[in-house]
This record gives sequence, C-alpha cells and structure tokens, in this order.
Amino acid sequence: MFVLVTYDVNITSPLGQNRLRQVAKTCLNYGKRVQNSVFECVLTEAQFVLLKDKLSEIISQSDDSICFYKLGNNWKRHVERIGKDTSVDVTDVLIL
Amino acid sequence: MFVLVTYDVNITSPLGQNRLRQVAKTCLNYGKRVQNSVFECVLTEAQFVLLKDKLSEIISQSDDSICFYKLGNNWKRHVERIGKDTSVDVTDVLIL
Repeated sequence: MFVLVTYDVNITSPLGQNRLRQVAKTCLNYGKRVQNSVFECVLTEAQFVLLKDKLSEIISQSDDSICFYKLGNNWKRHVERIGKDTSVDVTDVLIL
Repeated sequence: MFVLVTYDVNITSPLGQNRLRQVAKTCLNYGKRVQNSVFECVLTEAQFVLLKDKLSEIISQSDDSICFYKLGNNWKRHVERIGKDTSVDVTDVLIL
C-alpha cells in the first residue's frame, strides 16, 4: 500500500523544532522524503498502524497536523511531477 | 477528480520567494490549503491540465518541485488525519 505522508509542525517554540526533527526521522524509517514535509511510503497495513501511532505520540495534537493519503498499489499511475524530480522509485531495488 | 498538490519552492533568492507566493495564489484558485505547501483540489480533467500549465510557467524547473497525487472520486476513504484538523470538505456547500 502506497501512503503519502504530509505534515505541518508548529515550530514557533523549541519544542516544536524538536517535534519536527522527530517526525522527519520517524518518517525516514518508513519511506522516502520527496519534499520538505512530504514522504512517500510503501507500507503493509501493520506498518501503517505503527507509523500513525508513533507520529501521534510525537506531535502536539493542537498545534501540528499530519495527513495520510493512501493511493493503493497502482500508485505510480496516479502521481505526476513537474520541476526538479525528487523521486527515486520507493519500490526499486537499491544496490549498495 | 481529487488531486493533492504538494510543492517545494527554493526560496533562497527573492525570485524564489515571489515564485512561492505565486504558486500558493494559483493553487488557492483551484482548491483548499490544508498545510503550508499542500493543497486539496477537486478538479475536472481540463482544470487539472490548466493548473499544471500555470504552475509549470511559474516555477523554476531546476530548483522547485511540484507533485500531483490523484486519489479518484472516493478520495475521502483514502485520507486520514491526526493532530490539528485543517480540513474543510472541499466538496461541501459553502454558505456565505
């Protein structure tokens, strides 16, 4: 399942800046950053539940917002990009 | 058709700050801002083509990036939110 994660964290306080770092760090464990606060993740249902739980614990429920957009398995046909291409296919094999 | 628009504009130059304002202004004509650089739009195919053209003209192809994620008509079932809810249903009737 392809899930797009987008977030806005209120960084007007030092606590907010810390939350922002933690949200990004957590998302990096589950997918790929394509823009500042946008991550593309390919997840199982269990991983998705886990990710939401972890992010829920990090953010301030009143100040921050996170949205999850689920695009299903044929997600590549539903994504278009213009400008600088920041995508590396999250399902491609990475040869290290 | 529901289209999510996310963007990153390089604002290290005054030109970039101007592009950022124009991108946001253009997106506001087509949908609703749910996060800083995330817009939810319900568009016809023609409107989508027009929006892409306008944004393509505004951005720097080498410095900025815009992604379009199409979620189809049953989009509400594919969106989840945690934290501060920034959504107003873009298909709801607005009584002014």
